Amino acid sequence: MTQTAQTPTAQPIRVLVWNEFRHERKNEAVAAHYPEGIHETVAAALREGGCEVRTATLDEPEHGLTEEALAWADVVFWWGHIAHGEVSAEATERVFARVMDGMGFVALHSAHFSKPFKRLMGTGCDLKWREANDKERLWVLAPGHPIASGLGEYIELEAEEMYGEFFDVPPPEELVFMSWFTGGEVFRSGCTYTRGRGRVFYFRPGHETYPTYHHPDIRRVLVNAARWAAPVDGPRPVFGNAKPLERLDG
Amino acid sequence: MTQTAQTPTAQPIRVLVWNEFRHERKNEAVAAHYPEGIHETVAAALREGGCEVRTATLDEPEHGLTEEALAWADVVFWWGHIAHGEVSAEATERVFARVMDGMGFVALHSAHFSKPFKRLMGTGCDLKWREANDKERLWVLAPGHPIASGLGEYIELEAEEMYGEFFDVPPPEELVFMSWFTGGEVFRSGCTYTRGRGRVFYFRPGHETYPTYHHPDIRRVLVNAARWAAPVDGPRPVFGNAKPLERLDG
Amino acid sequence: MTQTAQTPTAQPIRVLVWNEFRHERKNEAVAAHYPEGIHETVAAALREGGCEVRTATLDEPEHGLTEEALAWADVVFWWGHIAHGEVSAEATERVFARVMDGMGFVALHSAHFSKPFKRLMGTGCDLKWREANDKERLWVLAPGHPIASGLGEYIELEAEEMYGEFFDVPPPEELVFMSWFTGGEVFRSGCTYTRGRGRVFYFRPGHETYPTYHHPDIRRVLVNAARWAAPVDGPRPVFGNAKPLERLDG
Amino acid sequence: MTQTAQTPTAQPIRVLVWNEFRHERKNEAVAAHYPEGIHETVAAALREGGCEVRTATLDEPEHGLTEEALAWADVVFWWGHIAHGEVSAEATERVFARVMDGMGFVALHSAHFSKPFKRLMGTGCDLKWREANDKERLWVLAPGHPIASGLGEYIELEAEEMYGEFFDVPPPEELVFMSWFTGGEVFRSGCTYTRGRGRVFYFRPGHETYPTYHHPDIRRVLVNAARWAAPVDGPRPVFGNAKPLERLDG
Repeated sequence: MTQTAQTPTAQPIRVLVWNEFRHERKNEAVAAHYPEGIHETVAAALREGGCEVRTATLDEPEHGLTEEALAWADVVFWWGHIAHGEVSAEATERVFARVMDGMGFVALHSAHFSKPFKRLMGTGCDLKWREANDKERLWVLAPGHPIASGLGEYIELEAEEMYGEFFDVPPPEELVFMSWFTGGEVFRSGCTYTRGRGRVFYFRPGHETYPTYHHPDIRRVLVNAARWAAPVDGPRPVFGNAKPLERLDG
Repeated sequence: MTQTAQTPTAQPIRVLVWNEFRHERKNEAVAAHYPEGIHETVAAALREGGCEVRTATLDEPEHGLTEEALAWADVVFWWGHIAHGEVSAEATERVFARVMDGMGFVALHSAHFSKPFKRLMGTGCDLKWREANDKERLWVLAPGHPIASGLGEYIELEAEEMYGEFFDVPPPEELVFMSWFTGGEVFRSGCTYTRGRGRVFYFRPGHETYPTYHHPDIRRVLVNAARWAAPVDGPRPVFGNAKPLERLDG
Repeated sequence: MTQTAQTPTAQPIRVLVWNEFRHERKNEAVAAHYPEGIHETVAAALREGGCEVRTATLDEPEHGLTEEALAWADVVFWWGHIAHGEVSAEATERVFARVMDGMGFVALHSAHFSKPFKRLMGTGCDLKWREANDKERLWVLAPGHPIASGLGEYIELEAEEMYGEFFDVPPPEELVFMSWFTGGEVFRSGCTYTRGRGRVFYFRPGHETYPTYHHPDIRRVLVNAARWAAPVDGPRPVFGNAKPLERLDG
Repeated sequence: MTQTAQTPTAQPIRVLVWNEFRHERKNEAVAAHYPEGIHETVAAALREGGCEVRTATLDEPEHGLTEEALAWADVVFWWGHIAHGEVSAEATERVFARVMDGMGFVALHSAHFSKPFKRLMGTGCDLKWREANDKERLWVLAPGHPIASGLGEYIELEAEEMYGEFFDVPPPEELVFMSWFTGGEVFRSGCTYTRGRGRVFYFRPGHETYPTYHHPDIRRVLVNAARWAAPVDGPRPVFGNAKPLERLDG
């Protein structure tokens, strides 16, 4: 029978869901899908999956990304689109520093262009796109990966924004999903990375004009990603000048 | 605070510890470290870590690797050295088939030359070696990896057999440990691979004439490896002739 | 301006193109595309690209895979489909041994199920398929990779056999091409691997009933793959018992 | 026989060797090894290997990293140590943009903390270090890799600065060298990365107080790295809004 990794005494994973929260307040079509904001829909999925969740948005003080909020979080989920430029350099560096220290970071959809994600990738992060109701089919390329737990061979979304290759990110360490689009494109839709002690996952779907984050398979992936990205109690690296561990005159 | 991935309802991971069990019955120095056999010492470590454990040895019928035993197991641990050639082709294929289907496989020390490991690697799996009481220091190269959970920056073993590069395996997907040896060699001591739906981990230490599997850090790695290698409830691939999912005359 | 890696005194790469050569002698539709056999069309592409080429086929003595032929070859290209089972274990092991020693191996299309490729992968190598004239579009996912030299953003084939995921191979070390098919599938169509001192490339297109190996972009990939897979004059590993390089009593 | 990848009409690779050039003008011990500056010694090695080479240093206008100089270069080699902070943000971005476009970047020794390297890695890039005349032995872990061409099983340096793990970079895509140090440490000394269309190589040895860049094996690696990192004539990605390639109403 099938099991998953565990520790009997483990506590709930703490997730901070960050959202730009602009489209939902301006665009009725978006608000129809996400009346409380995309962050609340994502947060609800994670809570159903057993996570402890807080939310933060761009227009809060320090964008809600205070030292305290980040110290609390095991994982940050990030959704942003039209206001990447308004995120402060200071908040970006705080997120970056916490990832180096082990915090997970899950970048959703248009967060491919967010400041923290670009900072972590070291590339331009650009891609092709089209808002034309393409069908998207996300094929699972890694059936033994924890992020694919509970899924079938693919996830099908009747209509989504298209993202197409070349996606200018480093080659993913693990490629969990590959998308097929009606219009003839493919896209690396589920990509894992290691940065410092932290784990990063990019997950493509989730354009604001579609009900994607209400789809049960997408919600399952969100929960799986939180579990996968949660910190591990591994060694804290020691840097700088180091005494020898063996005799140098051996 | 630090958490690990979990599901609240998870059951104990089922591990089948397989051992050749020859040295311990012939060599008093080995028996002094492992009076019940290496498998029982490894099994005890895994039980302390919360796993449900069974053992099997070469001289049992079908080497203890029956369809039933393998169907039960989430993960197989394998220790072998002087009798690799006595393992049947049938048993090797049964282990291989279960890994394709999602069972984890942890190859310990001289299992680098075992039939199932060679079958899974697709390379020669040879290396340098020396029995001369080198000190071994296993440095953690992946501090955010679940297999490094609970460890310090390195594990130190006062005396071990040396294994040296070039180690003829495919480049590991994740390189968790790198060993330093007194005599001037290095070795990729903790290597992960994906094969089919299954996960494979090679862990170097554990020559039969040393008390390595009694070392608390080594025991921690064994437990971590069992958790990491346990199956995930991902999709079961469908192969063969496939009907189109979209209209071909589009 | 753009250059490629080189050595001024380099000699032509020696390629042995191996073909099962059965379809072409039985099926007029196949013979219409490949009157001299698929191997001769592949060989011609490689010769145009500056390689020195020999061919070998299944029904020759030792399948044309003699020690001499393999010792001569820098790279073997392999096409097979209906007669994988007729390839001898001895020939398979000779190819395997030469890859361990540095010879490149390029598996074409249905060679995913060939004995040497399966031996090198350590997995089942199965996949989905359909003969229904799907359009195939191979997107370049690695625009800086030597195998993508001279290509545009994608290669388009008006009609091909479909291969679909899950493709049961280890995660490729480099994923150069990803195919989109009309019927809704995707496939990892250009995959690189390292095995021993040798390099392995899997390239998907080339069903026998289509003129795929006459397509100029496909021919360009064949030449690029030969160059990429050619041996490097790196160290020849030394295995076995090893004297220490440093004092052990240090 | 052994060959390497080539194109008959290839032109020499153009390398821009950049050096901070401060130690050599202040410290007689350094000047004794590198009287014209480290850049001239590295440049000489590359010229011997058939490259066309220019040099640039920190105190030139724009640090010598003008648009023109970078447009000319196929590959930039970078050595810096005590003046990373003096490199302008503008020059860093020009280097970064050229790597995205396909230019190679080879970071030498203390360039692990240089602005372009940190920008490309997306991590902290810190490490352990010690100036104590440790012996360094760089083991080849990838005997089939072009950067290992012409080498033996390891490179031995009688005395070097020690760098120790954890090295805070992303897991290398290919790990070519692993260093052993007398004092008990190991280090990933030869690491490859893909960023955009460009290729990045980190090579550890080369502390300014040692004659490392005069060592024939080290010089061989410099030439190999230039060849490996040189641009490939692959597709230039197209980003932004994209028309469908297939009918969306299919």
